Amino acid sequence: MNKLYVVGIGPGAYEKMTIEASQALSKSDVIIGYTVYVDLVKEHFPGKEFMTTPMKKEVDRCVLAFEEAMNGKTVSMICSGDAGVYGMSGLMYEIGTRYPEVELEIIPGVTAATGGAAVLGAPLIHDFCLISLSDLLTPWEKIEARLLSASQADFVICLYNPSSKKRHDYLEKACDLMLQYKAPDTVCGIVGNIGREGESMQVMTLEELKKTSVDMFTTVFVGNSQTKEIGGKMVTPRGYKNV
Amino acid sequence: MNKLYVVGIGPGAYEKMTIEASQALSKSDVIIGYTVYVDLVKEHFPGKEFMTTPMKKEVDRCVLAFEEAMNGKTVSMICSGDAGVYGMSGLMYEIGTRYPEVELEIIPGVTAATGGAAVLGAPLIHDFCLISLSDLLTPWEKIEARLLSASQADFVICLYNPSSKKRHDYLEKACDLMLQYKAPDTVCGIVGNIGREGESMQVMTLEELKKTSVDMFTTVFVGNSQTKEIGGKMVTPRGYKNV
Repeated sequence: MNKLYVVGIGPGAYEKMTIEASQALSKSDVIIGYTVYVDLVKEHFPGKEFMTTPMKKEVDRCVLAFEEAMNGKTVSMICSGDAGVYGMSGLMYEIGTRYPEVELEIIPGVTAATGGAAVLGAPLIHDFCLISLSDLLTPWEKIEARLLSASQADFVICLYNPSSKKRHDYLEKACDLMLQYKAPDTVCGIVGNIGREGESMQVMTLEELKKTSVDMFTTVFVGNSQTKEIGGKMVTPRGYKNV
Repeated sequence: MNKLYVVGIGPGAYEKMTIEASQALSKSDVIIGYTVYVDLVKEHFPGKEFMTTPMKKEVDRCVLAFEEAMNGKTVSMICSGDAGVYGMSGLMYEIGTRYPEVELEIIPGVTAATGGAAVLGAPLIHDFCLISLSDLLTPWEKIEARLLSASQADFVICLYNPSSKKRHDYLEKACDLMLQYKAPDTVCGIVGNIGREGESMQVMTLEELKKTSVDMFTTVFVGNSQTKEIGGKMVTPRGYKNV
């Protein structure tokens, strides 16, 4: 049976990839991905055939991967972070129904939530939600309901896709919603370019976050009622009872 | 400055560790952790000094790690999965205030949510919550409120610590709460012993999950309204709009 790996390469730096991910890429004839991610791994896997498709051409990219596997090649489809978190593994299963001869293997990786958390300190120690602010495929009302529910139940919230050219005020809107249930001095943090050149982090309050501009390479963390700042780091305790 | 790594070793198998995690353990003189995790890595790092403390002795384990670092040794404190997800990195920052000479570096890893998702298919493609059913440090009312809020807002939900000897009926109670907002035929999945010997997975409905017994090595996934079964795998689409 033809093998097709769907590989989460982690935040960016080669060292943040799992050993298993590196082994899958080594075993592959062809490595397929969005241009930016292919450029991140290229130098570490010389002699491989690399194929790229642009952003928003995800379906084409999946079909390309299956077609290459059908041609008898061992193929890796790469995603940044984890392929199963806002990644390509779901679409691969959906399109895979057309290619029953191809066996999919998903190789997990470090997603921006956990990669960014390690830079900020320990913001995700307790129950948390991941919410994407992109309304490309999800109605904004659904995103709004999730921000409100998660805030009301005192979850730590990690925001993916907090901004884009067309959605520059979405983070501000999201903060206004979270402020309905979370205190203005809730400890928050932002991390930019996790595990890549120019990595940056900043700890601030929710009130300050509301006035902060972020780009599409930023991951945003909003604490729960117990989250605190310790020595410039964002730290959420293990629970609500004294330890 | 003395260096202390807090390392997420991933689900268990050596290959599921990041390259960076493996490098940190190689650089360390001492590797400290809960007995089970130390046994998982021991054979891959010969010649290291290994130290273990039993379950529920987390504070002692942190103090031990800092004391060894103060003695001039390079130390790795290891956790299964990611050190920042229900892991030790938060407590390390809290106890670290007593040891300002020691510099902490958190090395992220693959947590059970993403490791288990890769085994089940692609359940976490869209917004999701992690909720621990352990009420050791969190009041049960808080857990209940989170299960209800997350279900009402149609999050995919991943449950950590779904059972223990003392809490054998907690998963059933959690299912009853989720069933207030999620349909009985919601696609769910369980994964046991992720990335270890005896790894197992099963896809079922929420109604069936309610009647299922799980142990403490199981991670539970409850889909959103769009999650489906494709060829025995659990797959959540990228959004609510047609792609």
